[in-house]
Amino acid sequence: MSRRSLHNPAPDAASLRARLDRARGAAADANTDALLIAPGSDLRYLIGQAGGSFERLTTLVIPAGGDGPPALVVPKLEAPGYSDVPLDDLGVELVTWVDGDDPYQLVADRLGKPGRVAVSDMMAALHVLALRSAVGGAEQCLAGPVLRELRMRKDATEIAALRKAGEAIDRVHARMGEWLRAGRTEAEVGADITAAIIEEGHTTADFVIVGSGPNGASPHHDVSDRVIEPGDVVVVDIGGPIAEGYNSDSTRTYAVGDPRDADVAETYAVLQRAQQAAVEAVCPGATAQEVDAAARDIITDAGYGEFFIHRTGHGIGLDVHEEPYIVGGNDLPLEPGMAFSVEPGIYQAGRWGARIEDIVVVTSEGAEALNKRPHELVVLGS
Amino acid sequence: MSRRSLHNPAPDAASLRARLDRARGAAADANTDALLIAPGSDLRYLIGQAGGSFERLTTLVIPAGGDGPPALVVPKLEAPGYSDVPLDDLGVELVTWVDGDDPYQLVADRLGKPGRVAVSDMMAALHVLALRSAVGGAEQCLAGPVLRELRMRKDATEIAALRKAGEAIDRVHARMGEWLRAGRTEAEVGADITAAIIEEGHTTADFVIVGSGPNGASPHHDVSDRVIEPGDVVVVDIGGPIAEGYNSDSTRTYAVGDPRDADVAETYAVLQRAQQAAVEAVCPGATAQEVDAAARDIITDAGYGEFFIHRTGHGIGLDVHEEPYIVGGNDLPLEPGMAFSVEPGIYQAGRWGARIEDIVVVTSEGAEALNKRPHELVVLGS
Repeated sequence: MSRRSLHNPAPDAASLRARLDRARGAAADANTDALLIAPGSDLRYLIGQAGGSFERLTTLVIPAGGDGPPALVVPKLEAPGYSDVPLDDLGVELVTWVDGDDPYQLVADRLGKPGRVAVSDMMAALHVLALRSAVGGAEQCLAGPVLRELRMRKDATEIAALRKAGEAIDRVHARMGEWLRAGRTEAEVGADITAAIIEEGHTTADFVIVGSGPNGASPHHDVSDRVIEPGDVVVVDIGGPIAEGYNSDSTRTYAVGDPRDADVAETYAVLQRAQQAAVEAVCPGATAQEVDAAARDIITDAGYGEFFIHRTGHGIGLDVHEEPYIVGGNDLPLEPGMAFSVEPGIYQAGRWGARIEDIVVVTSEGAEALNKRPHELVVLGS
Repeated sequence: MSRRSLHNPAPDAASLRARLDRARGAAADANTDALLIAPGSDLRYLIGQAGGSFERLTTLVIPAGGDGPPALVVPKLEAPGYSDVPLDDLGVELVTWVDGDDPYQLVADRLGKPGRVAVSDMMAALHVLALRSAVGGAEQCLAGPVLRELRMRKDATEIAALRKAGEAIDRVHARMGEWLRAGRTEAEVGADITAAIIEEGHTTADFVIVGSGPNGASPHHDVSDRVIEPGDVVVVDIGGPIAEGYNSDSTRTYAVGDPRDADVAETYAVLQRAQQAAVEAVCPGATAQEVDAAARDIITDAGYGEFFIHRTGHGIGLDVHEEPYIVGGNDLPLEPGMAFSVEPGIYQAGRWGARIEDIVVVTSEGAEALNKRPHELVVLGS
């Protein structure tokens, strides 16, 4: 017997109801007869609770438009875990099933004869294939495109939660001098950071990247047993969710004493200008790729283009990575309420790397940065 | 930029190679042309690393039988995270892709013209549907039945890890008197237990159920703000993974001072006999449902059958819930190396509940219990 805790702060019923109504309308606009939402951040967005996700089917059945009420289909044993969800206020029926029932047929029976049924992007194949068989004949597609349109436009409750998460991770970066010094391994520093991420108000430390010296040139390096040396440049990229479910994600680059490599100061200055330019490029109507270009052009013009080997940013909310992606080719016009990272990096393979990352929210005029730690290369005592 | 840490103790290359070879043979036996394994416990079982699981496709492509080498298809940025995997020793090719490539077509090209392709049970719908389109014409099925057959028979490395996890959670139960007392909320006690689960050697506290008084009668209750009262019976069901990835899961029932309800002693004695009888029923050749019946018959004969509202147990390993399930109707004959929980419960709605849970491993003669805390109702000072 086991289940992750489901008790977390949730938006009020009115906000959730509005989200459900928007989802039903968007599904209809997408010529989809129903959305089947599995436990995870999509479910949390719609009913305020992510749910548990084991081998038994739990899914929120959302008929498009006005075709009958939504239903939360859940194993009877797990139903008490949803007692905090204001199902009546949301107009959602609770439908429980017990071992021996066929929950997939139960879902199919509610759908009648649909032509097109969307499953949430994160639904496990185990359930995707069983639902496909049960809802015979219907085309199966992804609910992601529908949910994405809703989730990438944050409401005030969500922005407040992202702001709170940003303040929490800023407090961790502010304490970096307590842990990051020569003679310690990345793993030792990472363990201290992990503890601090929790202390400062996160529910888990979702990722802790401490990339020292050459490891800093590998953007997805996490931690290793490498002993940090005087003169190392160290990329520290950390974050996780707060109780509300919204994530922090902030990167700062530190130097342990004076940098060993002579090209650090000049290169870092270019990176800092690029990150600032990208943030300044954020405003309603600007496209995602224009923000990417704002950073990339400066880095390229300075001759470092080949060393900036990833997109400039990713949306963030209940997921650490979600829409909008700040990348070349994405001509999505930004709108107030969209939240994403701005995190250009320059990576000198085998020697050192640097990255500066803030989460920003699009406002009516421009951008609000949710991370406020200094952008300069912070030199810590070696 | 963010990724979960992938650095964890892994089995030696020979063990992993043997698992991969068994998987290829089992796939062929199941008339499946290839297995596509997403990040998660199936991947960790096969290559020693669970991998990251974001929006970009990572999948281990395993051709059935001898049809060419397996390939680990991974985003180039995330490839460094797999540097600990002995790919050469495993005979696995590393195939990286970058933004702009079509990773699904890349997988399809390696498969040629398959008739039947299996995806791992936990693969996200996002990838399941894209792979279905890319591998046009092939029947898509689940890899679970193939992997299940392998994973439910633990090797010595796995049993050692489960034993270690059992000892770690036993140390937490041994300390319950430090935290569980009248006047504290379930949530406060749960927070202390969570910290102790980490202190005693788990990487995370995956689940913490503290069901006091009436809450103990809800098997999937986790914690609440209910203040524990003198005379409460409290179900404490806790566990999580250790660094090796294998999980603990153990339940003990405590009393805060003398139980308030007069029927506790007699009912609990029946539960204790039932749990012991189920463990004693475990031996090679006995079926899963015979173990369930051994516990259920005793509880039913004593007149409490209607209050034992769940199966007797679930397999455990890299997942908290996996095969074999100890439930009526499962005529699977047990074999040495199978590991599962034995956790009968009796639930008196609105008043109190009790459950006793040990993880056991099938041995050549019978069962080894991996949890060794006393089974009696432990009365703690109120």
